[in-house]
Amino acid sequence: MKEIKEYCGVFGIYNSEHAAYYTYLGLYALQHRGQESAGIAVFNGKNIDYHKGFGLVSGVFSTEALDSLQGNIAIGHNRYSTSGASDSIDNVQPIVVSSKIGNIAISHNGNIVNALKFRKKLEDEGSIFRGTSDSEVIVHLIVKSKKGTVEEKIIDAVTKLEGAFSLLILNNNKLIALRDPWGFRPLVMGELEDSIIFASETCALDLLGAKYVRDVEPGEMVIVDETGIKSLYPFKNRNCRKSQCIFEFVYFSRPDSHIFGKSVYSIRKEFGKTLARENPVEADVVIAVPDSGLVPAIGYSEESGIPFQLGFIRNHYVGRTFIKPTQKTRDISVKVKLNPVPDVLKGKRVIVIDDSIVRGTTSRKIVRMLKEAGATEVHMRISSPPTKWPCYFGIDTPTKDQLIASNHSIEEIAEYIEADSLAYLSLEGMLKAAGGKECGYCTACFDGDYPISIPKEIIEQAKKE
Amino acid sequence: MKEIKEYCGVFGIYNSEHAAYYTYLGLYALQHRGQESAGIAVFNGKNIDYHKGFGLVSGVFSTEALDSLQGNIAIGHNRYSTSGASDSIDNVQPIVVSSKIGNIAISHNGNIVNALKFRKKLEDEGSIFRGTSDSEVIVHLIVKSKKGTVEEKIIDAVTKLEGAFSLLILNNNKLIALRDPWGFRPLVMGELEDSIIFASETCALDLLGAKYVRDVEPGEMVIVDETGIKSLYPFKNRNCRKSQCIFEFVYFSRPDSHIFGKSVYSIRKEFGKTLARENPVEADVVIAVPDSGLVPAIGYSEESGIPFQLGFIRNHYVGRTFIKPTQKTRDISVKVKLNPVPDVLKGKRVIVIDDSIVRGTTSRKIVRMLKEAGATEVHMRISSPPTKWPCYFGIDTPTKDQLIASNHSIEEIAEYIEADSLAYLSLEGMLKAAGGKECGYCTACFDGDYPISIPKEIIEQAKKE
Amino acid sequence: MKEIKEYCGVFGIYNSEHAAYYTYLGLYALQHRGQESAGIAVFNGKNIDYHKGFGLVSGVFSTEALDSLQGNIAIGHNRYSTSGASDSIDNVQPIVVSSKIGNIAISHNGNIVNALKFRKKLEDEGSIFRGTSDSEVIVHLIVKSKKGTVEEKIIDAVTKLEGAFSLLILNNNKLIALRDPWGFRPLVMGELEDSIIFASETCALDLLGAKYVRDVEPGEMVIVDETGIKSLYPFKNRNCRKSQCIFEFVYFSRPDSHIFGKSVYSIRKEFGKTLARENPVEADVVIAVPDSGLVPAIGYSEESGIPFQLGFIRNHYVGRTFIKPTQKTRDISVKVKLNPVPDVLKGKRVIVIDDSIVRGTTSRKIVRMLKEAGATEVHMRISSPPTKWPCYFGIDTPTKDQLIASNHSIEEIAEYIEADSLAYLSLEGMLKAAGGKECGYCTACFDGDYPISIPKEIIEQAKKE
Amino acid sequence: MKEIKEYCGVFGIYNSEHAAYYTYLGLYALQHRGQESAGIAVFNGKNIDYHKGFGLVSGVFSTEALDSLQGNIAIGHNRYSTSGASDSIDNVQPIVVSSKIGNIAISHNGNIVNALKFRKKLEDEGSIFRGTSDSEVIVHLIVKSKKGTVEEKIIDAVTKLEGAFSLLILNNNKLIALRDPWGFRPLVMGELEDSIIFASETCALDLLGAKYVRDVEPGEMVIVDETGIKSLYPFKNRNCRKSQCIFEFVYFSRPDSHIFGKSVYSIRKEFGKTLARENPVEADVVIAVPDSGLVPAIGYSEESGIPFQLGFIRNHYVGRTFIKPTQKTRDISVKVKLNPVPDVLKGKRVIVIDDSIVRGTTSRKIVRMLKEAGATEVHMRISSPPTKWPCYFGIDTPTKDQLIASNHSIEEIAEYIEADSLAYLSLEGMLKAAGGKECGYCTACFDGDYPISIPKEIIEQAKKE
Repeated sequence: MKEIKEYCGVFGIYNSEHAAYYTYLGLYALQHRGQESAGIAVFNGKNIDYHKGFGLVSGVFSTEALDSLQGNIAIGHNRYSTSGASDSIDNVQPIVVSSKIGNIAISHNGNIVNALKFRKKLEDEGSIFRGTSDSEVIVHLIVKSKKGTVEEKIIDAVTKLEGAFSLLILNNNKLIALRDPWGFRPLVMGELEDSIIFASETCALDLLGAKYVRDVEPGEMVIVDETGIKSLYPFKNRNCRKSQCIFEFVYFSRPDSHIFGKSVYSIRKEFGKTLARENPVEADVVIAVPDSGLVPAIGYSEESGIPFQLGFIRNHYVGRTFIKPTQKTRDISVKVKLNPVPDVLKGKRVIVIDDSIVRGTTSRKIVRMLKEAGATEVHMRISSPPTKWPCYFGIDTPTKDQLIASNHSIEEIAEYIEADSLAYLSLEGMLKAAGGKECGYCTACFDGDYPISIPKEIIEQAKKE
Repeated sequence: MKEIKEYCGVFGIYNSEHAAYYTYLGLYALQHRGQESAGIAVFNGKNIDYHKGFGLVSGVFSTEALDSLQGNIAIGHNRYSTSGASDSIDNVQPIVVSSKIGNIAISHNGNIVNALKFRKKLEDEGSIFRGTSDSEVIVHLIVKSKKGTVEEKIIDAVTKLEGAFSLLILNNNKLIALRDPWGFRPLVMGELEDSIIFASETCALDLLGAKYVRDVEPGEMVIVDETGIKSLYPFKNRNCRKSQCIFEFVYFSRPDSHIFGKSVYSIRKEFGKTLARENPVEADVVIAVPDSGLVPAIGYSEESGIPFQLGFIRNHYVGRTFIKPTQKTRDISVKVKLNPVPDVLKGKRVIVIDDSIVRGTTSRKIVRMLKEAGATEVHMRISSPPTKWPCYFGIDTPTKDQLIASNHSIEEIAEYIEADSLAYLSLEGMLKAAGGKECGYCTACFDGDYPISIPKEIIEQAKKE
Repeated sequence: MKEIKEYCGVFGIYNSEHAAYYTYLGLYALQHRGQESAGIAVFNGKNIDYHKGFGLVSGVFSTEALDSLQGNIAIGHNRYSTSGASDSIDNVQPIVVSSKIGNIAISHNGNIVNALKFRKKLEDEGSIFRGTSDSEVIVHLIVKSKKGTVEEKIIDAVTKLEGAFSLLILNNNKLIALRDPWGFRPLVMGELEDSIIFASETCALDLLGAKYVRDVEPGEMVIVDETGIKSLYPFKNRNCRKSQCIFEFVYFSRPDSHIFGKSVYSIRKEFGKTLARENPVEADVVIAVPDSGLVPAIGYSEESGIPFQLGFIRNHYVGRTFIKPTQKTRDISVKVKLNPVPDVLKGKRVIVIDDSIVRGTTSRKIVRMLKEAGATEVHMRISSPPTKWPCYFGIDTPTKDQLIASNHSIEEIAEYIEADSLAYLSLEGMLKAAGGKECGYCTACFDGDYPISIPKEIIEQAKKE
Repeated sequence: MKEIKEYCGVFGIYNSEHAAYYTYLGLYALQHRGQESAGIAVFNGKNIDYHKGFGLVSGVFSTEALDSLQGNIAIGHNRYSTSGASDSIDNVQPIVVSSKIGNIAISHNGNIVNALKFRKKLEDEGSIFRGTSDSEVIVHLIVKSKKGTVEEKIIDAVTKLEGAFSLLILNNNKLIALRDPWGFRPLVMGELEDSIIFASETCALDLLGAKYVRDVEPGEMVIVDETGIKSLYPFKNRNCRKSQCIFEFVYFSRPDSHIFGKSVYSIRKEFGKTLARENPVEADVVIAVPDSGLVPAIGYSEESGIPFQLGFIRNHYVGRTFIKPTQKTRDISVKVKLNPVPDVLKGKRVIVIDDSIVRGTTSRKIVRMLKEAGATEVHMRISSPPTKWPCYFGIDTPTKDQLIASNHSIEEIAEYIEADSLAYLSLEGMLKAAGGKECGYCTACFDGDYPISIPKEIIEQAKKE
């Protein structure tokens, strides 16, 4: 059993007669953060009922399933896991347990780097784990805490943790939102009439017509119950470097969202503009690899004055398309998703914007498709710095030896992907575009400067996967 | 969250390259013991992989799911639960956990009457429960035990338990079978070439062509590993009255099975014969309510000399038939399953054999159908004594106030179900037919003589359901 | 494209506000006559709406599908086809077409032996066929007729046909039932309040609580419309030998049904009694191959005085059970459906009753299973004469060379199936049990005496299949 | 039964061992032309096998279904129908029939305006129709033709037709492509190694890596068989005005396709540029209603110099999202698909480009969403002229009384949709952008100038729908 790295989306709502339904819609808006499983837990006034399963939100929840979840407080979770079909239903969140403090449900976005240590310790003390996720460790630490109230227990538990955790916890009449002191993953707070909402991104608030109130701050714990909203800072004595994941702006969050108090769209466009200033090239057209390349490409176009065009059309009907494993259909796996527009490309010098290069194989296919469609030159521009280091805080990246930028110069990469030129956004340019270093970003995947020292066992484990 | 009463089937196999597949077939043969969920766990040489879900065995396991379960030791479980669609996936067995002694999987048939006490204690000590079944308590007790080896831990745990438990436990290279000292539920042992098999009933052995070796005895623990087969009697110092569920003969087990060392078919037929001797009536034909009434009806016919006929034809295609909730189709819910044969019934005095009467409503429908089909007299004969007391050891029966025999005389019941006469098998007759009282049977549902005193909270809980 | 031989069930109802729903229930009761596809067509006052699909009635019709079929006249159809998954949706009945006389829907049970001739002729004249069934030919002949009214057109069409056709036709406000002049397939008429019902067997009437009125007679055409019920005999000038399929009593119809004015149960039991008189053998027990062997086994037991027992338990949960194609699981394909009861068989001389032997392979498996379960002698008794000739009138049988009785003596068959003895019901005995030759039965599959001469092309075609 | 107006995509391939698989991929690329049903027919050397069903290509075809379609010539069809769930499987194309000239399969894109007349005539002559589509009429006319060869029969049939028909016909070893003499719908020809391909749009060729050869010309019939490729012009004596559907450029075709010998992307962008020249307005940002508004918005931006931004983010996971029918969630039906980006819109004067306005209700929702997201002014610009007349040639538009532009001035529409200004592309501007009037376009939906006079009964029928 291996620990799972996850992207995730979380959503919670307090005091709504439509708690489960609004959570369903919130998860639907956050579907881009995880498509492999979904779940909703609701406090029915006495216990916590829940429903969860593998697949998209719209597939997991039938009208009947949704109607069966009655109550005014709910939390939900979307998950993307790397282990696919072999994954266990026991890892699907929210995790709901029964304990001496009653039913507890938990939705977790992020990755705990010292979870293994506690898991081992808990197992030695006789604890039992159903799944393999580090999220389950959090629940155990809370319940095992010797402190008095549930809030004190949670504080006791989470202050032991190192890593990324944007958490929503449901217990009895309380909905608790918590963000790790580094602030790796986003978590926002909103309101809709008399309801309080927490969500990974503001796009979930927008869909409901809810008002954005503010971010849950790094290290903050917000407790909502019948006495009102209370804010605590359990990590204040701890000296944690604010380390908000800058990759959320590059790729992960939806462009219509605000996270870390900033507009994803604006920053993503600024990445494109900066990229244009730093890495100009004479060309006829700027195009994007959809969807994450679209906004920086618009920025690049604006700054460079080179016109932006739709160079690729994305097929919206991609599903479980059956690809025959024969020589002749070899390249179709990319083509079924992305179709080049010959009239935009033929005889043109093309700048193509992508968000990042991981292994380089997809980039090479893209360059080839563009050339086959008639591009005379292909200049690839990446709206982030070279990805050289694995992420241990909740974004799935391969190990160093598989990251092409970790072992190759930019020239070598350009040659491998068969581009006429290749350039990346600089780290400085990226930070400036995101509001400056002083905003507190984690840039470890680009510079290896991990805000928390990563235990050897975690590094080893990642290698084995 | 309420505790679930369950019927169940368990199956386990040691040392077979087709472990998961044979378990699949075994569960298929035991499908009559539970149709609501199924699961298989297999030890892959290092960890335990598993697959489980709601529905019939044939629906839960695709070829792919089965093929993904690689390993030589497997256990499986079929479950019937009373709580239906609202039930949680966390209750589906085998329960598989990770702990300091590695992965453990457990399949449990039966009901632990003092589980609540331990659950409360474990929760007080910080344990966490995922589901609501008492089976999960067993896992916790095992892992929490301070004893050294896994066998010792299991012994430490199970000797604390009161109630019914036919258990299969998979841990590392060991397959352990265990039956409570009262011996409530059946558990047999077989062999197929070099493999050792455990199953609820022998019909699972028969399907595989495996040889029946013997029953796991009440209070016996059989450990199978690379050193061979070891038998222990952990409860030997405890003075438990042997209490094998006589209702398994009446209704639950398949007639082609042997349980408790006896042929279900033979005993069930003897019930019919005794019933005929005890409660003769002049009539033209003996018929059965299929399927559990068939064998006693044949016995009744043999003994009485009154010819046996198929008075009802069962529709094999009953599935999720849509019944329109209108006046005119009111009675169709029974008719779609069971169709009277007019030519057997018209102008006849009919003896109809059923296994038991619970609330009396179905019996009334049956009597009416027979009369509408032309029967001039309907004499109902029940192949067990009046069911007056709820079962707390793994068979789902309603509370006393809903058991018609608990509050009404046989005459009153006869009148309610509109039968011309009604008679039950006597308790003495039943025991004698089953080999005599000395075989050690639980007859609590008929006489209230519970072999274990039932905690008040269990009785209260049952009432609330 | 090959012509398809079919078993089928038909149902129709006139003047009911629940027309589609009652047809659904009727088809459900007739499910044993065909499990591969189902359909219902309903006249909505103007046009005919329909819904059809592959699978069981309960699978084809969702509540929504059923609710969408509004109208007071409906016909339905169940089909069993031999061509399986490769079959086309265009063959699923009722066939519904649009034509100059409006929408017409047709449900057909039987097989037209001169259909190919008309199909060829119609194609030569420019007609187009969607599917491959001979039923489609009937529709074309009706529409192409130059006669005036729809009744006249139908008469013009069907009087050209040779073969088996129990037909229900829906056109505008008329429901027409028609049975070929030989009367091969059954067709009964019933009433429920103000509604008139037609069905293949009375069990469909019984489920609805409808009253059996009478059979539609061989060669009769019953027209139901707002003017009442009219009966015509369009074939009266034609000299057709009454030839009701006696195999319906042996195997095909449900024992609780009446067909051809007789009780299936009574006749099937009489088959068993006659069989006992004709072929006595000393033995300890009479058992049946379920389900069609059950009633004759009871008859055999009654007549012989040898006790009847349940020698096989049928697994009700057989579905799409996955059978691993390995040496060791070779015999499991039969065992998953049928499980011998050792206690009935061990050390016993067993008489086993089956309805017929086709190729002999299944019979051999059954004998082997009985012997493995401990039977000392196995005497097979067949409740019909040896099946030596293929049926061309709607029952799927293989060609002569595949019918074991066609090329082997009874002794050779006994040896092949490894039975200690084998005997069949005599043709005379069968006819007598069914009321006598004068009732008018087709016994062609036993004696080759086809009531209609079979065109060469049909015989050739059957061979190729 | 009503006639169905359809959008459709057609694909055919001659001489490929992967005929069915390539057709599958081709249909996948053409999925935007129809999502309600899909089918493939393949000539197996003797007969035509086929598989079809409701839903997306990826859902209709399992690997097994695809593998069962063996042969070297195939045609396929995607369909969008307006009648939804109540539609009949008999209308799903390709239509495959058996006739005197063997099996024929037909895939049809377009709408025949004089089909009803022939249908009536054919019915009067005794023909039978299974479905309601005008495509079925074509098959009947071909088969009924008295001409000698199949080519002559097809010519005889299609020269009778008025309306839109891009047809693919499969018969024995021949694949025949045919386009009506007006040339309403596109049809292109390509080659891949030794195979000849026909498809509605070039994007299907591109996915396969096939080479575009040329368009099938209006009025051309291309016959491909073992003797090679033959081109005929059966309509040459008929004086038909070339009338290629200009709306294909506006909305229907994929931007990466070439149709009518022209790039959809280029023309669609030119629409945007012309729109900007004709209807300038002072504003801060140009955005699009995705997806069909994107390319003209880029054109508008280029021409006007006002920056293009992504004002809406489209949710890719839209499926069967459950919308609760309550007051509060009223607007969510649009929001779940389209999410405004506040940072692009806040405080901005916004130009929003859409392809057309039908009823005006969606446009109003869009304007409201933009204003709620902070736009100070919303100027809607439509990349086509006002849609005032229904289409009878294969694009589904409502009747005149439901087309807002048919009964309201542009000012009234602007007021209704709550836009600060509204302007449409002029007809002249559109024609010029599409290469000039001399290219031969149908603009009937904008100016009512139908190239064929529409029979009264068709107009009446459309009104009733």
